[in-house]
Amino acid sequence: MEGAKTKKESKVVVAVDESEESMFALSWCLSNLFSEDHIDSTLVLLYVKPQSPVHSSFDAAAYMFSSDVVATMEKYGSELVRSVMERAEAVYRNFDANIKVQRIVGRGEAKDVICNTVTKLKADILVMGSHGYGFFKRALLGSVSDYCAKNAKCPVVIVKHPAQN
Amino acid sequence: MEGAKTKKESKVVVAVDESEESMFALSWCLSNLFSEDHIDSTLVLLYVKPQSPVHSSFDAAAYMFSSDVVATMEKYGSELVRSVMERAEAVYRNFDANIKVQRIVGRGEAKDVICNTVTKLKADILVMGSHGYGFFKRALLGSVSDYCAKNAKCPVVIVKHPAQN
Repeated sequence: MEGAKTKKESKVVVAVDESEESMFALSWCLSNLFSEDHIDSTLVLLYVKPQSPVHSSFDAAAYMFSSDVVATMEKYGSELVRSVMERAEAVYRNFDANIKVQRIVGRGEAKDVICNTVTKLKADILVMGSHGYGFFKRALLGSVSDYCAKNAKCPVVIVKHPAQN
Repeated sequence: MEGAKTKKESKVVVAVDESEESMFALSWCLSNLFSEDHIDSTLVLLYVKPQSPVHSSFDAAAYMFSSDVVATMEKYGSELVRSVMERAEAVYRNFDANIKVQRIVGRGEAKDVICNTVTKLKADILVMGSHGYGFFKRALLGSVSDYCAKNAKCPVVIVKHPAQN
């Protein structure tokens, strides 16, 4: 068993998306997981772009999009990434935390990309909101946070927005 | 939004049960959530005794137990509480953490008791294992940690035993 306060370096992955909740989760994480004796810790901001529609799981059902539509969606996706990352960076700048920050943009099924990234990085903690990724998708496929809480290879912090409480 | 490192006092509830995983969750919590600048934090060890069989939800189905059986189960329950609390205390003594510790023994449906206790104590974080409370019950009723991650009025850390990873 590990002794108290021996672990000074840790890698904290925060799954960010366009939701207010994920920004609140990031803010919670900075308040609670980056204390003075964790200054060597790394904050990893992970954003998962949805799968490109032409490569989505609907392929088999022959959903086809014109190249114009695909280009527009790609552009929208890139702008969304930039917007989310900028918001996330504003949150951590606000904390004046002297920590290393790494940005990762993944692509695919959020739950798989998040769990795979955690494994690959050997992350110590994964922090995420309890919602996000769309109501209908959640209702159909179950929540991404439920899946990650069960499958990610590290402890998972599920943060709810206070408005949900 | 709260500034970084301003919050020195927090109340961390760890739901402990007879599982190795919950002891691992406690150990993780001591390593990661009680740093030098959180010395005023309180660790709350929460154990939930199952509902007494004579008061259980099976009442309506007229499950009856003789007073001898009830007395034996009550005794077994009390011994279990003592055993779990002793194990938990051994874990935190091992950390040489100079923190306030509070012990709470609840009774009833684990998921309800845990969420209600978190609300009542105005806890800042709830830490628990991802399993526990029995395979069959979990399969039938869903996992206690799933429920708490969704319903507890604070961020919830779900810790898996490394053997599960």
